Amino acid sequence: MNRRDIPILEITLSFDSNSSEPLYLQLYSFFKKEIVEGRLIPETKLPSKRKLSTHLQISQTTVESAYQQLIAEGYVKSEPRKGLFVTQLEMGFFNEKERTSPHDKLQKNPIVNPIKVDFGHGNIARNEFPFPTWRKLTVQSLYEDESHLLLSGHRQGDLPLRVEIAKYLYQSRGVQCEPDQILIGAGTQYMVTFLTMLIGRDRVYSMENPGFHRTREAFKDQGVKLLGIELDQEGIKMEDLVASKASVTYVTPSHQFPMGMVMPISRRMELLKWAHETESYIIEDDYDGEFRYTGKPIPSLQGLDKHGRVIYLGTFSKSLIPSLRISFMVLPPTLLSRYQDRFSIYKQTVSRLHQQTLYLFMKEGHWSRHLQKMRNTYRKKQTVLLALITERLGEHVTVIGVDSGLHILLKVHNHMTESELISHAEKMGVRVYPTSVYYDGDPHPNIPMVLLGYGGVSEREMQTGIHLLQTAWELF
Amino acid sequence: MNRRDIPILEITLSFDSNSSEPLYLQLYSFFKKEIVEGRLIPETKLPSKRKLSTHLQISQTTVESAYQQLIAEGYVKSEPRKGLFVTQLEMGFFNEKERTSPHDKLQKNPIVNPIKVDFGHGNIARNEFPFPTWRKLTVQSLYEDESHLLLSGHRQGDLPLRVEIAKYLYQSRGVQCEPDQILIGAGTQYMVTFLTMLIGRDRVYSMENPGFHRTREAFKDQGVKLLGIELDQEGIKMEDLVASKASVTYVTPSHQFPMGMVMPISRRMELLKWAHETESYIIEDDYDGEFRYTGKPIPSLQGLDKHGRVIYLGTFSKSLIPSLRISFMVLPPTLLSRYQDRFSIYKQTVSRLHQQTLYLFMKEGHWSRHLQKMRNTYRKKQTVLLALITERLGEHVTVIGVDSGLHILLKVHNHMTESELISHAEKMGVRVYPTSVYYDGDPHPNIPMVLLGYGGVSEREMQTGIHLLQTAWELF
Repeated sequence: MNRRDIPILEITLSFDSNSSEPLYLQLYSFFKKEIVEGRLIPETKLPSKRKLSTHLQISQTTVESAYQQLIAEGYVKSEPRKGLFVTQLEMGFFNEKERTSPHDKLQKNPIVNPIKVDFGHGNIARNEFPFPTWRKLTVQSLYEDESHLLLSGHRQGDLPLRVEIAKYLYQSRGVQCEPDQILIGAGTQYMVTFLTMLIGRDRVYSMENPGFHRTREAFKDQGVKLLGIELDQEGIKMEDLVASKASVTYVTPSHQFPMGMVMPISRRMELLKWAHETESYIIEDDYDGEFRYTGKPIPSLQGLDKHGRVIYLGTFSKSLIPSLRISFMVLPPTLLSRYQDRFSIYKQTVSRLHQQTLYLFMKEGHWSRHLQKMRNTYRKKQTVLLALITERLGEHVTVIGVDSGLHILLKVHNHMTESELISHAEKMGVRVYPTSVYYDGDPHPNIPMVLLGYGGVSEREMQTGIHLLQTAWELF
Repeated sequence: MNRRDIPILEITLSFDSNSSEPLYLQLYSFFKKEIVEGRLIPETKLPSKRKLSTHLQISQTTVESAYQQLIAEGYVKSEPRKGLFVTQLEMGFFNEKERTSPHDKLQKNPIVNPIKVDFGHGNIARNEFPFPTWRKLTVQSLYEDESHLLLSGHRQGDLPLRVEIAKYLYQSRGVQCEPDQILIGAGTQYMVTFLTMLIGRDRVYSMENPGFHRTREAFKDQGVKLLGIELDQEGIKMEDLVASKASVTYVTPSHQFPMGMVMPISRRMELLKWAHETESYIIEDDYDGEFRYTGKPIPSLQGLDKHGRVIYLGTFSKSLIPSLRISFMVLPPTLLSRYQDRFSIYKQTVSRLHQQTLYLFMKEGHWSRHLQKMRNTYRKKQTVLLALITERLGEHVTVIGVDSGLHILLKVHNHMTESELISHAEKMGVRVYPTSVYYDGDPHPNIPMVLLGYGGVSEREMQTGIHLLQTAWELF
């Protein structure tokens, strides 16, 4: 048996401090990839924990955890008093496939390219999360006298939480509903899938184009006919919608995703009139409507609707915790009856323990305080980002969608394509995101646009990031 | 304005101590129902907190919470220094609809009939849940240095938890898989819905008849053709399955739901041979396979399968916490590729915080200790229940499905129909459950059967319950 050591200097990985993955998983992924792709051959000996931790300047515990994971999954075997060795793998089946999510294509090899700044739009300012409060409220449900919370709760979600959501929606979003109309569920894609069942798959569906790709694919996977409707400055184009013969439409009026415009009241009224006259349904996805920075708030479509044609979708992913997976929808009377008559056999998909924590968080006033604080945080972040862009990138870029939300778009006038913009940025250690993935079919914009989320980016990182983008995109 | 007080003695509700609802919600529901159904008319004054708490022997805080809920939802208004009054409701739209889930029909009016013993099969022995451990592990993830757990995790579920699940499945269920094959998701119905997409809706589906109604409806709602296949003593009838031309089948071989038989190895091999030869898929739902009391364990279908035809479904609902909503499935290679190629755009539906807690719970050995303890608990409960049944109900009943799981079936030979059995029991304060709902179409058994879950029933309650059933069913 020929065994070899890995020269320690061959291990040249940098950690991505913006990654949502802990260090040990990044290290684990590095080794796994090296093994799966054949660069570390069977019987190669891994460096000792001590050596590797010194070399990479990480703790021995981190190395230990990564090694344990590799052993558990069988990539590496431990031989007592000899060390750790790469095992002989059955290849083929377990090779990592190419992932098809458009973002993943960009997120591959997070270790190989040292990323200094990641303008990912799913991130939040997690250092501002009220950990002590959330801990205290979480623990309250975990005593034996609250043990009823271990059993299945109401299929629509527990009533106390629905009461709090209804109150909040009325006060801050102008949504008019009873707690009975609210359905809590595990994420927007789950909701959209459920809605196609509730509304019926025989209708023609439509949505904004460009629009939220995860929703679009969820509609398509439900086998419904889905039409993309173009946008103008005010949002979805009414004449195209009317001509389309669709009788369901999905829109993001508070902050169009990804373009960022806020639908004015006139367009809202037109849309509601269309829905009323054609007995169509409007799915209003208010995914980040909590964060509005300029102008007067415009009532939600749901709040303006007098004829029960709007389904309101909301989420706690942007405003609270992305990984909590709590979304909700408000059903109009007709769909509520249909739900109660025909689909009440579906169990609730969100943990009742989390529901209880969130209920207490809202009821005790922490939620409104948190929102207020985050609104200020994000407003400040956006101000800093826009100032940096003006200063560094100047007239070479056009900024789009600054009224609300946690991301902006940049049109870059330097004759690079979208993928050049992204790859040049990545080479400099900055991750920005494509917008072409949000278009269904061909009609991409003439001038390429990239998306920059700033929710999880510190001011210092913004400074570095925009500076590096100036160089990457050669904007002098 | 004519106002009247409610004479305190008119309030005759009993609380259901087995209910998963806290007292204040039961009280709230009582008043809401009285108001919605017109028995409490507008402007009626509610009793003071003090009076009602004395009358019902509950705390003033409980009354206060119920009243707050009624006020929040607008059923009652508070007038300073005067008291609480029933409001004038807009009726029609917000009336509670009949729910269609078969169990709900029985669970209506939980307050009006004082239920002493509830043989509900979704319950667990919640007093044995290791609250201190779960609390400690939960809190560990809620500190700022673990804040990456707030961000979206891997779409299949976080790797550390998948590693633990894979290890557990191999050791105790004989399931052979890599962590990469595991998909975590929010409940069996979500999984089944996702699977129709993954397997394709053009195939003909089939499942055991009788079988799990929630799964059956989920298949049907996905628009697939679904055939019910009869059972014999060993499980799904092979000749009927072969003749059906179905190319997907859903089975519960560890403990057929609801009939309780364990599929012997010979039938398992036949089923696998069929799947291999016809390129069909078997969905193996191992919903409570952890709890087996007699005979040798039989390996899972997945573990016996050499050709990648089995999808293994598991859940933590029976074995840990029903309201946590964590299920998982193990995909065979063909479906794993399809998932990675075409459906990786779907986000994970289970909270990452819960995933982390469960991961730690498994990794630190609490999970296997908990399972061992619960297996003993449930075995003991079943022994007591069976002894009581023999003693009290004797030859008038046939007990079915005692090898595993958390429920048994009773065939009752007293010429009552199923609904008579249930309603007579309910009049005596005992809740038992129908089995007819698990049949698709007509072929109900000749002799009616009811279902008794015992996971959440104490030995004392069993004694009371079986005693009352003897009277209710006139078995002397």
